[in-house]
Amino acid sequence: MNLTDIGEFGFIESFATKFDHLIKEGDRGIGDDCAVLSINNTTNHVITTDLLIEDIHFLKDKISAKELGYKSLAVNLSDIAAMGAQPLYSFLSLGIPKDTPVEFLDGFMEGFYQLSEKYHTPLMGGDTTKSADKLVINVAVVGSVEKSKMHLRSMAQTGDLVCVSGFLGDSGGGLKALLEPYEVDANLHKLINRHHQPEPQILEGLFLGKSEHVHAMMDVSDGISSDLKHILKASKKSARIDKEKLPASPLLAEVSEKQQWNLTELCASGGEDYELLFTVKPEEFESLNQEFVAKFGKPLYVIGKIEEGPAEIQWYKDGQSIMLDKLGFNHFGG
Amino acid sequence: MNLTDIGEFGFIESFATKFDHLIKEGDRGIGDDCAVLSINNTTNHVITTDLLIEDIHFLKDKISAKELGYKSLAVNLSDIAAMGAQPLYSFLSLGIPKDTPVEFLDGFMEGFYQLSEKYHTPLMGGDTTKSADKLVINVAVVGSVEKSKMHLRSMAQTGDLVCVSGFLGDSGGGLKALLEPYEVDANLHKLINRHHQPEPQILEGLFLGKSEHVHAMMDVSDGISSDLKHILKASKKSARIDKEKLPASPLLAEVSEKQQWNLTELCASGGEDYELLFTVKPEEFESLNQEFVAKFGKPLYVIGKIEEGPAEIQWYKDGQSIMLDKLGFNHFGG
Repeated sequence: MNLTDIGEFGFIESFATKFDHLIKEGDRGIGDDCAVLSINNTTNHVITTDLLIEDIHFLKDKISAKELGYKSLAVNLSDIAAMGAQPLYSFLSLGIPKDTPVEFLDGFMEGFYQLSEKYHTPLMGGDTTKSADKLVINVAVVGSVEKSKMHLRSMAQTGDLVCVSGFLGDSGGGLKALLEPYEVDANLHKLINRHHQPEPQILEGLFLGKSEHVHAMMDVSDGISSDLKHILKASKKSARIDKEKLPASPLLAEVSEKQQWNLTELCASGGEDYELLFTVKPEEFESLNQEFVAKFGKPLYVIGKIEEGPAEIQWYKDGQSIMLDKLGFNHFGG
Repeated sequence: MNLTDIGEFGFIESFATKFDHLIKEGDRGIGDDCAVLSINNTTNHVITTDLLIEDIHFLKDKISAKELGYKSLAVNLSDIAAMGAQPLYSFLSLGIPKDTPVEFLDGFMEGFYQLSEKYHTPLMGGDTTKSADKLVINVAVVGSVEKSKMHLRSMAQTGDLVCVSGFLGDSGGGLKALLEPYEVDANLHKLINRHHQPEPQILEGLFLGKSEHVHAMMDVSDGISSDLKHILKASKKSARIDKEKLPASPLLAEVSEKQQWNLTELCASGGEDYELLFTVKPEEFESLNQEFVAKFGKPLYVIGKIEEGPAEIQWYKDGQSIMLDKLGFNHFGG
């Protein structure tokens, strides 16, 4: 048996509990977007780390050095946003093939720096070493959040609305445009840009995190068909999701029609949207959304609701229960 | 120009200062064994991260999975020890080639767990993903230390004795035994074991860190001929090191004589000893050493002293200044 058989999540789950008895009260280990470290009576630090490897997570001839540096930090900041936390510090490990031009590294650091400066998150340390062949990037980010403002995956409540903070599927469309032999027009270029330069929803996460009516929260990295299951499993709830409510950008809708892409599939499982997925008390949604629109100039989207039942997504179309295939993926199993 | 030309340290230094203006007062970024994050008026968190890549830092057919898991955490704990800090939390990112047997991963986690438990440092999170071909391991560890007990590389004072916490060169001897076609007898096996299973000097670091007479401190990862230069550069001091004072284990001395190894070179630049290298007020050394012996059953070793002058090591043999070649190395410069 090898990792392909058990899958990434299987392996993580197989050893996570082994460390439980070493974890102090008030801290939380594996299971949310970030680990939670209690630093005093009122504040938690949250820490996330992501490993990106050439030819697995990116193709060096498809992304510029600057975009890669930007994205390496962005995907970690997105996990901080998912905790409603303020990012504080970053750490960067680079494994660099010997023939890598210094210009590439300078470009990488330029993109990394751009986002560091935007979110006042200095690079505090790391490790630089050579790599046998592939470029290897590991980023870790530390953030802080008030203990009274924690939003864990386990906090979804029956009756909550399931919401997302923005359009889904653009990034997945951009990836299709990159990998398949399309002639890249202006629209495809915009989608590719959404894939390469996602905006971490830091300010949105801080805003949503401050609301006591927002319950479970996480970021959309694999696609909601896969990510939402983590909330359902941790909260021991079911969810009904309405296919037609998945918010696609007009851009993606236009391109999908032209290219005959499956728009629902892209929105549900395209992955790497890095929007926020959260549940909220239904009677509080309207006022939350009004404030959100006033602050960010864009709306929140309700895509379904939390129900009692097995930790699975029940997909609906025009009020009818449907089966959706080919949704969700697993880095190893996929 | 590529990384081979400027070297690892050149690249790090080229961008470290770019983030300085984002770093809050009381925090410290790149430049010591760990980054320093102020969490309140009395306590700092310290964070280190190390990236290990197959065929660069280890050969999968030369080290067992369990030893590799152990060592991955050990080298990070050693950086925590170098700050005189208590380790608190670890994070592990693994990039795993598809054909990796689950038994290998189980062995790896067993070794990682062994040291986690010994030093009460739970694994709190990480990332698991596939890798195109090489096994990739990134570990980060968080520790804590009192602000009044900080020992930075910049703190060496003129007249300080330069000391190490234990024998040097065993690990370098073990590496030679692994890489060259020796018939591995019991002695070589012991050296290989020192290379694969270094003991992080956590308790020793906590003890030394509590002394106000200990000034600069770091761990010996590349060999003192290379590592000490970091202290000299940060402290703007020179050092006189006596070749014959470098502490070699009786085991290494015996093997070196038999195999005709250059014992001084191994002690000075073998690397991966993970002992502590520190400077101490000369008149306080004896009492510190007596306490150390009583507590740990082994002595501290004085190898030289800090002087005014350029940030270089002046090597001495029998009281005469000498030149030593082939000392120190740089991961990139070879």
